[in-house]
Amino acid sequence: MHEIDLALTRLGLTWPEPPRPVASYVRAVRTGNLLFVSGQLPLREGALLRTGKVPSKVSVADAQTAAAQCALNALAIVRAELGGDLTKLVRVVRLGVFVQCDEGFADQAKVANGASDLLVSLLGEKGRHARAAVGTHALPLDAPVEVEMIVEVA
Amino acid sequence: MHEIDLALTRLGLTWPEPPRPVASYVRAVRTGNLLFVSGQLPLREGALLRTGKVPSKVSVADAQTAAAQCALNALAIVRAELGGDLTKLVRVVRLGVFVQCDEGFADQAKVANGASDLLVSLLGEKGRHARAAVGTHALPLDAPVEVEMIVEVA
Amino acid sequence: MHEIDLALTRLGLTWPEPPRPVASYVRAVRTGNLLFVSGQLPLREGALLRTGKVPSKVSVADAQTAAAQCALNALAIVRAELGGDLTKLVRVVRLGVFVQCDEGFADQAKVANGASDLLVSLLGEKGRHARAAVGTHALPLDAPVEVEMIVEVA
Repeated sequence: MHEIDLALTRLGLTWPEPPRPVASYVRAVRTGNLLFVSGQLPLREGALLRTGKVPSKVSVADAQTAAAQCALNALAIVRAELGGDLTKLVRVVRLGVFVQCDEGFADQAKVANGASDLLVSLLGEKGRHARAAVGTHALPLDAPVEVEMIVEVA
Repeated sequence: MHEIDLALTRLGLTWPEPPRPVASYVRAVRTGNLLFVSGQLPLREGALLRTGKVPSKVSVADAQTAAAQCALNALAIVRAELGGDLTKLVRVVRLGVFVQCDEGFADQAKVANGASDLLVSLLGEKGRHARAAVGTHALPLDAPVEVEMIVEVA
Repeated sequence: MHEIDLALTRLGLTWPEPPRPVASYVRAVRTGNLLFVSGQLPLREGALLRTGKVPSKVSVADAQTAAAQCALNALAIVRAELGGDLTKLVRVVRLGVFVQCDEGFADQAKVANGASDLLVSLLGEKGRHARAAVGTHALPLDAPVEVEMIVEVA
């Protein structure tokens, strides 16, 4: 699916190294035609793009960028699991998005759009997914957002 | 499954218009025989039944009603995805229930029962599901509860 | 899979009675080859091992033990659903881990390792799974951790 690489380039992005789990689990598990990808943090080249709560420490715009990075990391894992061949990706099924936010913040959907929009930009209709986006007061490594993904594969 | 419509009427309810996603995702995705429904808020005719935390701003009883509305919205989406024919619904598989609550609140299960009980009332044994219910300090649009659903379809 | 029982004994553990749902849902639902297990609390013989937040009221070490108990309870449910025969367990697919923690706590992954490590100790490669671990400020019954599980079965 060379066109995805082109879309990535157009967005000024490159494939990240698929992040390794920081603990005793694996990055993804395939069962039948479903691939469950572990919760991803906004890591780029080993460092978090941002830390802290939305919006007091991380703006909504920056949190959207962070959510997009989470989604890109998840997609890089899918790509690696498929041997580099994203033509075997049938579609994204579900995203779970956790936003570390301040008391009273109610725009979790806006933040999660950072992840959703990236997937649609890269994958088109195949990128459209069901989603649950919620707030939380604490995330691993003080990340502002965590995204987990289920995809259907051929 | 005309009997579901009858059960709905007996409960004094009607089918809601399936809520539209407020962002760049879709209301549900089918993969194989599973249908993943996006997280639903307690919207009725476009407005939230309640906003704020359980129990300081929303009583447990009102939160149960809100959870039931979330479940009904999810089921309305399933019905629409099945072309209006709920006889193709094999069973509800899983609910994820997020309750926006005060520090120290520990009755998330009671709130979630609002959703679970409605499904069993409407669908009988087919409505019984696995469930994870947790608390959170913030939800989209300041909703007191959010429910996502996975169902098996024929 | 007698060897799992041996591994359990070596860890000084025994099979718990599969916890019953405390509400109107079921402990697990099978759909195709997937078994969705409801969110488990760290109950042992009907009582929570600990209550309260990590780390102010529950140390990380104790929370790991609690997470392991959640995972063991989930596995006991899988075993019961399979008629006591865990040889039909193909593999653990996904864990969802919710850690009730203080503001500023960022070691949810460490706590979740309590669950993940137990599964790998008992099941070996079959125990490796995808995972999402997040923090929350409130859980049912004031439990420090809740774990839900999806497994593939034969």
